[in-house]
Amino acid sequence: MDKLIIDARLNEYTFREPNPNVPYSPNEIARDAEACVAAGASIVHYHAREPETGAPSSDTGLYAATARAIRDRCDAIVMPTLGANTVTDLDARIGHVESMAADAATRADMVPLDLASLSLGMWQKGMDEVRGDDLVYYNPIGTLKALAARARAVGALPMAAIWNVGSLRLLEAFCETGVLPNTIFAELFTTEGGLISGHPGTPAGLQALIDFVPARVDCVWAAACYGANALGLAEQAIEQGGHVAIGLGDHPYLELGGDPPTNARVVEAVVEIARRHGREIATPAETRARLAAR
Amino acid sequence: MDKLIIDARLNEYTFREPNPNVPYSPNEIARDAEACVAAGASIVHYHAREPETGAPSSDTGLYAATARAIRDRCDAIVMPTLGANTVTDLDARIGHVESMAADAATRADMVPLDLASLSLGMWQKGMDEVRGDDLVYYNPIGTLKALAARARAVGALPMAAIWNVGSLRLLEAFCETGVLPNTIFAELFTTEGGLISGHPGTPAGLQALIDFVPARVDCVWAAACYGANALGLAEQAIEQGGHVAIGLGDHPYLELGGDPPTNARVVEAVVEIARRHGREIATPAETRARLAAR
Repeated sequence: MDKLIIDARLNEYTFREPNPNVPYSPNEIARDAEACVAAGASIVHYHAREPETGAPSSDTGLYAATARAIRDRCDAIVMPTLGANTVTDLDARIGHVESMAADAATRADMVPLDLASLSLGMWQKGMDEVRGDDLVYYNPIGTLKALAARARAVGALPMAAIWNVGSLRLLEAFCETGVLPNTIFAELFTTEGGLISGHPGTPAGLQALIDFVPARVDCVWAAACYGANALGLAEQAIEQGGHVAIGLGDHPYLELGGDPPTNARVVEAVVEIARRHGREIATPAETRARLAAR
Repeated sequence: MDKLIIDARLNEYTFREPNPNVPYSPNEIARDAEACVAAGASIVHYHAREPETGAPSSDTGLYAATARAIRDRCDAIVMPTLGANTVTDLDARIGHVESMAADAATRADMVPLDLASLSLGMWQKGMDEVRGDDLVYYNPIGTLKALAARARAVGALPMAAIWNVGSLRLLEAFCETGVLPNTIFAELFTTEGGLISGHPGTPAGLQALIDFVPARVDCVWAAACYGANALGLAEQAIEQGGHVAIGLGDHPYLELGGDPPTNARVVEAVVEIARRHGREIATPAETRARLAAR
């Protein structure tokens, strides 16, 4: 089996309640990235946040300062996010990644591409209505082609974010037609905590994605869960040769006990599972080499 | 097991090549509906089409004339479609159904509600690019709530069209919050023939929907496949207590041999499978009673 690739999902748009260890500022993110890489992560994924308030930011300066601060401290594969999910203008979605590419110290190694349009309904048992009336994550085929081309033009590897079985069929179509490279890192997202657009974060929910990973693609897939503890899914992925994307951006992980955990502690928990299954851990250099294959 | 409910999907936007038996005009559709009900269908689903050319039509007069012609001939549960898939204006989507309700002879018994927004990518092996750059089937949560409310206000039962696992989670959320009734007819769509937005029309593709039908909903689910022969999936559904939605709108069914088949011949093929499995066939009255349960 491939060595285990761990993507540390550092902060998303998550706030510091209930876990105060979610990083916001470039330096906080970079310190977390360094600790996660030391613990076994090879990819670090971040969203720019206002350093004081944690408010979502689309400031190119913050994105670039974060990438630079990460590279000052460690050898991580740097994956900033694209423009926020209800933005449809291409420049607003990927302009910061193009600007960052002007300097080797600030460039993005990888960017996520969500291979689906979705109605972003929010509901869980006990709620008296489904929320998100107007929220549609709008990713037309043409937009995805353009984002992939613009990312690749500045040397950023697309990461395929998979939301459902249709996403996996589109992944195959994009790989077969050259929109995406045939060797690709794909995160199989499950969603909990009220976000019902994806598969549930259960063994069956994840398996119903794994089972449709296209055979003709050299797909380096990872399990992920937004909104719940993903350690069970991580084990399921590790057993089947898959990889893991996990972090405080998705869930506070208070279940780990003691003080609220850091991102690095969550990565360590994944590494412990991997050791039990005899999976070795990929370094950033090994992950880079794996994803450059073919 | 419930008696088998068969929805005859008469014409969609399919043309008469390669099968000349696709009905266009109100009388053609009504004759087909009558023959399908005689063969075992209890629900008939149609799109209004220009009688001569078959061009898609949104003419309320054609929709109403078709419903009236069907009722003149048989007792089918009448399910016209809603406004075409890239229309976002609510009146354009459901106005014809509201107008039809003014007369008992022309009213819709049931209307389909697609519980997902989707990028409508088209690709199959051999194509050098994915088509559908701008095609997004736009069904925000708020739009679906409004369509369900307006349909129910005129006595039309919503049918839940399911495209992926997220659709099934939204179905549960809508049933639990009263947007949809707890007893509901849901068609589990798989897609072939280049439409890659849904699950593949394979046993695994269908099963990965069946497995997520919400247990707390009284979900009367049917297998369907747009773009390929659905008879194998029909058998899979019949074995598991599900129902079947099928017709020339989805596929020409030349595999049945001899002259190109009619819709009624396709329904007969389903009935033959049901007989082999000991499933009885529901009449329109029995289907009505089943869907009125609770």
